[in-house]
Amino acid sequence: MDGFSFSTEVRIRFAETDAQGVAHHASLVVWLEVARVAYLAAHAGGYQAIRDSGVEALTTEVCVRYHRPAYFDDALRVWARCSDVRGARFKYEYRVDRAGELVADGYTLHATVDRETYRPIRVPVWLAEAVARAEAPAA
Amino acid sequence: MDGFSFSTEVRIRFAETDAQGVAHHASLVVWLEVARVAYLAAHAGGYQAIRDSGVEALTTEVCVRYHRPAYFDDALRVWARCSDVRGARFKYEYRVDRAGELVADGYTLHATVDRETYRPIRVPVWLAEAVARAEAPAA
Amino acid sequence: MDGFSFSTEVRIRFAETDAQGVAHHASLVVWLEVARVAYLAAHAGGYQAIRDSGVEALTTEVCVRYHRPAYFDDALRVWARCSDVRGARFKYEYRVDRAGELVADGYTLHATVDRETYRPIRVPVWLAEAVARAEAPAA
Amino acid sequence: MDGFSFSTEVRIRFAETDAQGVAHHASLVVWLEVARVAYLAAHAGGYQAIRDSGVEALTTEVCVRYHRPAYFDDALRVWARCSDVRGARFKYEYRVDRAGELVADGYTLHATVDRETYRPIRVPVWLAEAVARAEAPAA
Repeated sequence: MDGFSFSTEVRIRFAETDAQGVAHHASLVVWLEVARVAYLAAHAGGYQAIRDSGVEALTTEVCVRYHRPAYFDDALRVWARCSDVRGARFKYEYRVDRAGELVADGYTLHATVDRETYRPIRVPVWLAEAVARAEAPAA
Repeated sequence: MDGFSFSTEVRIRFAETDAQGVAHHASLVVWLEVARVAYLAAHAGGYQAIRDSGVEALTTEVCVRYHRPAYFDDALRVWARCSDVRGARFKYEYRVDRAGELVADGYTLHATVDRETYRPIRVPVWLAEAVARAEAPAA
Repeated sequence: MDGFSFSTEVRIRFAETDAQGVAHHASLVVWLEVARVAYLAAHAGGYQAIRDSGVEALTTEVCVRYHRPAYFDDALRVWARCSDVRGARFKYEYRVDRAGELVADGYTLHATVDRETYRPIRVPVWLAEAVARAEAPAA
Repeated sequence: MDGFSFSTEVRIRFAETDAQGVAHHASLVVWLEVARVAYLAAHAGGYQAIRDSGVEALTTEVCVRYHRPAYFDDALRVWARCSDVRGARFKYEYRVDRAGELVADGYTLHATVDRETYRPIRVPVWLAEAVARAEAPAA
């Protein structure tokens, strides 16, 4: 996928469908999180490593555009990239496709906070560096 | 409802339906929890009061029988009673109906644990007494 | 709430929280839908009436900004207004607050489709008129 | 796993946890469904094949016992077997473990109905035979 080097697959559960016969739109918000977790596992030791270092990452904004309905048992590919790490904030962008066909795209914004006090805290250097390596253009 | 003195209403959300056009069966497990929370709010100062006293109530068993499908926007009445408080364990029983028609029934088992150590801890006396009062047969 | 004449209350369920101890961000997307359904019940005979008229309303975009965390058992007020009904599209805007404090805001976009063919179909006149009446500024 | 020949893996999503810091108990009900769907995909052409043949499988009873808490990002193995196919009814039994440690067990009951009329209809012969083959003891 143009501009994305990481993706993970999600298979739509029956519980994620609704009475319109399609995947409920809130399910997609959960799949974006699944992709972030898989991204961090691949590139930065996992989300739990971040939590264990005393940092929580809050979600401060979610925007999703739905281009095509998705159905029970569809295998979706969720492409994710982390961009704009600055201070206590970072951004993820996403494309969700099914067999190359665009199903949805969107972005999420996040803020890092101290796990105890919930006060803003800079994105840890090791995490910012791991993201920079992950998103570095191939030579 | 025979044998029940407490109930709460749940209106079925669209997100709780599935591609069969009915409420997904896992939604019902959530509504039983909604009823327990409402029960504790009515009779024992609320679930948060229990948590604030250093106790967590874990769910150790859930059994639900589905008698009739339920649909988007249905108003369900969830009847709940707490029974068998003993040691570190208690039980809830439920009937869920729609306009007097049985939709589901079931029970859940719970264990109280220390909120920090997650070791079993007796149901607090104040909570056991609140339940006993709530379930006392009307004179 | 400035600019909003409709709201509904949502009480946060335990099942809607996550291991950060707050309401999971996808729960908010569901509450916006709860508000839309309540809005349509108050102003346009209910969402089921729309479906019964052969029209489905799809969600084509969701954007939510999270301003403050929300917690188990919080009573949230979800303000909703329908705007920009044009052709086969309409928009909802939202503010979610807790005791007057802003928790989240956002909007959703929707498209009306024929319930059988899923082809775009104009928002029914009766529905557009019901919305216009609901959103008419008080004299 | 003794008595089970089929299993599938589920990795716990952050959205599936709750404010107790563990996987919410209703999540497990969803994972049992994920296992049934994977079982049918492996042995009987998939759940959608059943739906396409004009049959819906309703869930009529769910019982789960929770033996140990499960946590975000845990990899759980869900063992499932189909038993007691008779008439319009069938049963699944489950064991859920994490690295060989029992997390939960339980069963679900199901009824097959005509997809249009929702009237009981016998489990299709091809499906009953596929299950019999799947559950046949190894020679």
